[in-house]
Parts: sequence; C-alpha cells; structure tokens
Amino acid sequence: MKELNIIKIGGNILDKPTQLHRFLSDFASFPGAKILVHGGGKIASTIGQRLGIIPKYHEGRRITDSETLDLVTMVYGGLINKQVVAQLQALSCNAIGLTGADANTILASKRPVREVDYGFAGDVAGNRSINVEVLHGLLTLGITPVFAPLTHDGDGSLLNTNADTIASMLATALASLYQVKLTYCFEKKGVLQDPTDDTSVISHINQARFIELKDTGVVSEGMIPKLDNAFAALGQGVKAVQIGDAAEINDIVAGGKAGTLLTL
Amino acid sequence: MKELNIIKIGGNILDKPTQLHRFLSDFASFPGAKILVHGGGKIASTIGQRLGIIPKYHEGRRITDSETLDLVTMVYGGLINKQVVAQLQALSCNAIGLTGADANTILASKRPVREVDYGFAGDVAGNRSINVEVLHGLLTLGITPVFAPLTHDGDGSLLNTNADTIASMLATALASLYQVKLTYCFEKKGVLQDPTDDTSVISHINQARFIELKDTGVVSEGMIPKLDNAFAALGQGVKAVQIGDAAEINDIVAGGKAGTLLTL
Repeated sequence: MKELNIIKIGGNILDKPTQLHRFLSDFASFPGAKILVHGGGKIASTIGQRLGIIPKYHEGRRITDSETLDLVTMVYGGLINKQVVAQLQALSCNAIGLTGADANTILASKRPVREVDYGFAGDVAGNRSINVEVLHGLLTLGITPVFAPLTHDGDGSLLNTNADTIASMLATALASLYQVKLTYCFEKKGVLQDPTDDTSVISHINQARFIELKDTGVVSEGMIPKLDNAFAALGQGVKAVQIGDAAEINDIVAGGKAGTLLTL
Repeated sequence: MKELNIIKIGGNILDKPTQLHRFLSDFASFPGAKILVHGGGKIASTIGQRLGIIPKYHEGRRITDSETLDLVTMVYGGLINKQVVAQLQALSCNAIGLTGADANTILASKRPVREVDYGFAGDVAGNRSINVEVLHGLLTLGITPVFAPLTHDGDGSLLNTNADTIASMLATALASLYQVKLTYCFEKKGVLQDPTDDTSVISHINQARFIELKDTGVVSEGMIPKLDNAFAALGQGVKAVQIGDAAEINDIVAGGKAGTLLTL
C-alpha cells in the first residue's frame, strides 16, 4: 500500500500569513499522496463582526444558525480554502479545494436537537460517509485535496463540521487503501508534560499512557477529544498519528524527534 | 466523441431561490457529461455593502481591488458555489465546486495596467490555459464541475474573471475531446428582434446574419461581447452555441424551439 499523509492545520496558523506560507511550502514539498484539512481562524469572527453576526456558543461549542452557516461557508469554503489552494498551486502542488459537499466526499448528519439546538452542525456518521472512491480517484490523478471544515447532509444543506473530526474520518476511511499517517498541527510543540514548559514534549504516548495522563490530569480538557479521535483512528487501521507544531512539520512527517507520536 | 453540455447561468437566476432550484433540477436530470459555470449575483453587492466595501467601476467593468477580490472569493467561490453544489448533490448530480485555482483548471493573467488598473481581474490567455487533462479526469469519474467566476495567476493570487469567458474557454478547450454544446442562460428568451417584445426571439443566427444584426443595431451593446465569444467558440470547434432563458433549459438542451441557436 502507498503512503498517504493527512495533515490538519488550525486557526492559529491560518491567521498568520508568513507562518502559513512557510507551512504550505513545506507541505507542497512532501512527495506522494497527501491531503490537507484546515480549520477556521479569527478571520471568520472578524468578518462576522463586520456583518453584524453575533457568535453564539453553548459550552464552548459554536451554535451554527443560518446566518452563521452562510458566514462559515463564505470564509472557510471560499476565502481561506481558495487562498490556500492558490498558494499551493504557486508552489507546484496541484491542490483542489473541497467541502464535504464537493463530489459528495463527506456526508454528515445534522446534530439532533436535544437540550441544545446546535443548528447546522454536522456529525460524520462513520467511515461509510466518506467517498473513498472519489478521493482515491483524485489522488490517482495527482491531485491534493484541501478540505474546509464543512460537510453536507445530502438534502441540500451544508453543515459546519469540526476539522479534527474530518481529518480522523478521512484517515480511517482511507486506511483500507493507503498506509495513512495523520498529523494534527496545533499551537504547541506536542503533548506537554508541563503545559507551562514548551520543551516538555512527551515524544510517545500509547493507550495505557494516555489513560495514565488523563488520570493524573496532565492531558487537559481541550486535548482529550483530540487524543480520543487519534486513538479511535489508530484502532481503525491508521498507521500513525502525530501531534505537533506546524513550524516543525518537515521533521514530524519525516518521522524525526519533533512532536508527539501516538500508537496503540 | 461523447457529448458535453456546458451551461452558464448568471446573476438574474442566482438571486431567485425558487427559479434557481427549478433550473438545478433540470440541469441535474441531463444525462452524460456536463459542466455548470455560474456568474455573480446581487448577493455580492449586498454583502459588500454590509462590509462597507464600495464598488468601483470603469465603463461598466468592475474594478477588483484587494478587498473586492476577497469579497468575490467569499461570495462566488464560497457561498454561491457551495450552495449550488449542495443542492445538486441533493438532486443526485455529483457536482464539484471549482475556481480556476482548483486543480489548476484555469490559469489566467492579471489584466495589464494601461489607462485603467482593473486590479485583480483575470484574462484567460487561450485554450492552453485550461487543464483539459484534469477536467477530462473528473468527467470520467462521473463528476460534474461547477465553476465560480474566478481563476488564478499561478503565482498565488486568485483573479476575478468573467463567467461568459470562462464558459467559452472551457468549451473551446474541451472541443478536442468532446462534442461540446455551449448554452448561455440569461434574462431573455433568446436574442430578440425587438428588445421590447419577448416573443420576438430570433431562432437562428449565423455569422453573416450576426454582422447584419450588428449593422442594423438590433444586437445591442451588452449582447455583442456575448455573441463575439460565441462565434469565437464555434470557430474553434464547438459544435453548437445556444442562448436562452434558464426556465427553458430542458427544451434548449434537447434542441427544441426555445432560445437562439448560433452556428458559423
């Protein structure tokens, strides 16, 4: 099986043009099949404010009402996605920008309304929601998919979907055809033993260690769903999951010392 | 050679949800290879106003400064394009939304600054600017490209590009591989003998008749570049060009009586 690198970048780098360009140069240079998944960024909030759209949250999760869906469709699916694609093209990487609606690549379900109505938020049901055939077709044509954090419900509506979830769903679905390496880039150099010390990166975490780190409170709230996603992906055939700083992506992808490696 | 329908729709229909949905239902039902190209629409002006972006024009042509480029990237490449794609998916048409940057499908040049600086406006240089190989690859996978009126310069910048031009450039470039039928939908039922009489559709115009219609002033200013584009496409191997009302697209595509047929 051929190798496939799936790399997720978040808002922290999307908001910094110089760092983003450096990351995209690195990404463009990786040989072989690859997929980029990007999150949002402060620009959506900035444009939302200018449009007079008031952000709504429930326990830290954004509520996507109709006007917020239009906003993220514009900013994530349009502005950020197309600017990243145009930059990758200039770096000789044949990128194609996608939402889950495009070529029906990711089908999701609108989150059911229980105590809270999250609005147009999409949950990806499972591996079968990923159009493996089309993605394999694109990769075979030498094209690099670049995903915005949007999916669709198959009934004509786009849905706002967590980029980490998209990355892990793509990874597990494509594990049947590729040796998938999934890398999450975020604002830290890896999972830290001491959150106040950037040099305290834990280089390797297996499942037993993960339980230990949760029990001792070393792994904090925001990190838990990220690692849960990662171990779920490993459990479903993904070869390796790595977490680290976008500035160190070359070393991470090359299997060097940077970042945190997760294995079962 | 297989048949390929390339259909362009403009702002007049994009701004009307019910009519747009009816058109997309018709479009989804056409068998075989097809490509949709869409223009802008009033929504870009509305959102631009809300963002405080002041539209700038020179002799009716929009000047695309940096913030206007961001606006059209959001609205054309994000909002309109992705909503059309999601609707087509619900109609069982496997659409993929594209700008010219995506998979390097359309390379353009920033319009040179002479008396006027049109900003980030892109001119498509010729057939060789269209990535025929990738488009053929997508069509072969059963995917329907949906183009927003945006291209790229290959140096990392998106460019605002006329949707009529994109449609005719795609048509001529793909004429080497397909029997291409190019259809322009607009606000009239076809080219009218009497602009005040909607029933005076001229059913057929050849090149000689076109010259005559220009000389007698029947074909007016806005129509001339559209027909010039159409005859240029016919001269380069496009099988048929038709102009008509999106509401009559079924009849037009079936080769019925609706609309105006252009031949050499």
